[in-house]
Amino acid sequence: MNNNNHNQVSIHALDGIPDIQPGDDLPGIILSAIDKNQYQLDDGDILVIAHKVVSKQEGQIIDLDDVTPTEEALKLGTELNKDPRKVQVVLSESKRLVRASKRPEQQEGTIIAEHRLGFICANAAVDESNVDAAGKVIILPHDPDHSAREICRSIEQATGKALGVIITDTFGRPWRMGLVNVAVGLANVPAKVDLAGDTDAYGRVLSVTVPALADEIAAASGLLMSKNGKKPVLIFKGVDWQASDSSARDLLRPQQEDLFR
Amino acid sequence: MNNNNHNQVSIHALDGIPDIQPGDDLPGIILSAIDKNQYQLDDGDILVIAHKVVSKQEGQIIDLDDVTPTEEALKLGTELNKDPRKVQVVLSESKRLVRASKRPEQQEGTIIAEHRLGFICANAAVDESNVDAAGKVIILPHDPDHSAREICRSIEQATGKALGVIITDTFGRPWRMGLVNVAVGLANVPAKVDLAGDTDAYGRVLSVTVPALADEIAAASGLLMSKNGKKPVLIFKGVDWQASDSSARDLLRPQQEDLFR
Repeated sequence: MNNNNHNQVSIHALDGIPDIQPGDDLPGIILSAIDKNQYQLDDGDILVIAHKVVSKQEGQIIDLDDVTPTEEALKLGTELNKDPRKVQVVLSESKRLVRASKRPEQQEGTIIAEHRLGFICANAAVDESNVDAAGKVIILPHDPDHSAREICRSIEQATGKALGVIITDTFGRPWRMGLVNVAVGLANVPAKVDLAGDTDAYGRVLSVTVPALADEIAAASGLLMSKNGKKPVLIFKGVDWQASDSSARDLLRPQQEDLFR
Repeated sequence: MNNNNHNQVSIHALDGIPDIQPGDDLPGIILSAIDKNQYQLDDGDILVIAHKVVSKQEGQIIDLDDVTPTEEALKLGTELNKDPRKVQVVLSESKRLVRASKRPEQQEGTIIAEHRLGFICANAAVDESNVDAAGKVIILPHDPDHSAREICRSIEQATGKALGVIITDTFGRPWRMGLVNVAVGLANVPAKVDLAGDTDAYGRVLSVTVPALADEIAAASGLLMSKNGKKPVLIFKGVDWQASDSSARDLLRPQQEDLFR
């Protein structure tokens, strides 16, 4: 899985991924786009896929007309000036609300929630952009690690190459402005690289240097994954990594270690 | 500043950057390494530089033997089982402590502080790895935006190319495990890209999609900037960006918008 040139990483966007429909053969669509773009997959390449195409393929789209808000959603909707049906979807996707607030200058308030899978993010990752009809929202894949592994296995079988897959979503951050992509589903790519025991340039032990490899790659994907949704799949070449039995849940900070809940 | 191929970004690490000493000609050292690595700079390339080499060049190194801890530092040092002289340096670099705590299983506690420049991070970015002597710590450059602009200007003058520079540090994150590089100093590269007014693939206005471009690039730098300190300078080619009068402070969330202080 190592490559010989650890001084270069390249990132390639796939043109021509069509609008994905529930039940589409996503690995087949990706392979066809790789061909059309005249790319080749090599051992150690990592495919980075925006969760929206995976969610759409899995039918994780909710028509707000089918949603009946609970009392809690109605109350929160009024407080935040937010469609109570959307609030209901957020609540249904959440284990727990972390913060909910509306500043006077905001048109619509903010919900920070712990998603059922443990991710802490705005609106429990419920998203209304890049859906082909008003009144619909997209939620995360049912089990993004599983989705990543299935896509990875299909493409590995078709190509004979040892690959990795990262499914991403776009999150805001406390303290820092602007959005970055993060990993929400992983196949083979380690979430973190544990350098404990390695030494720095002066021989000191680097006891706490644990780069979040999967999130480094996810963040980099934002450089080419255009926000208008037309380039949802990228190939990373040249990343130095070893396949592991990883999960995006490895990126979640345990509650007892978290000072900001 | 645009390039013709928005489907590819490449990242190149420079081998052979020597250990930097106070007063060294850092732009000259970088240019020499670019030559030795047989790279060429093109218009629109972005140099990403680990803050440590900039801090060292500026002499932002503190000998703990020269530090006299205050009462506050002594008290906090006892609570956190942390060298009170290090605590003193953290306090001197901070505007404000955000959290300070030690869990029983931790050998040394954690200080989350607001650095004098506004960054919220562990230990106010005071770092003890990759210093060539025990008993010394490195602090951030005095004004990382200014440092980035000076380095950028020197290298632009020497090459005649229009460039960007990002100075990075490695931060932890609430909620997510593992470290990622973030931008702490910027020359020309926009902190964020404001897509407000742009539309998604279905024509909806993307009112809140503001990618943190400089942090996307900083995070990607972690893929090649080895944690042992030997590859502190990278070149990014192919990023789609427009030069702007930016500052890493544009990445700081205003206190009134922050739900997690």
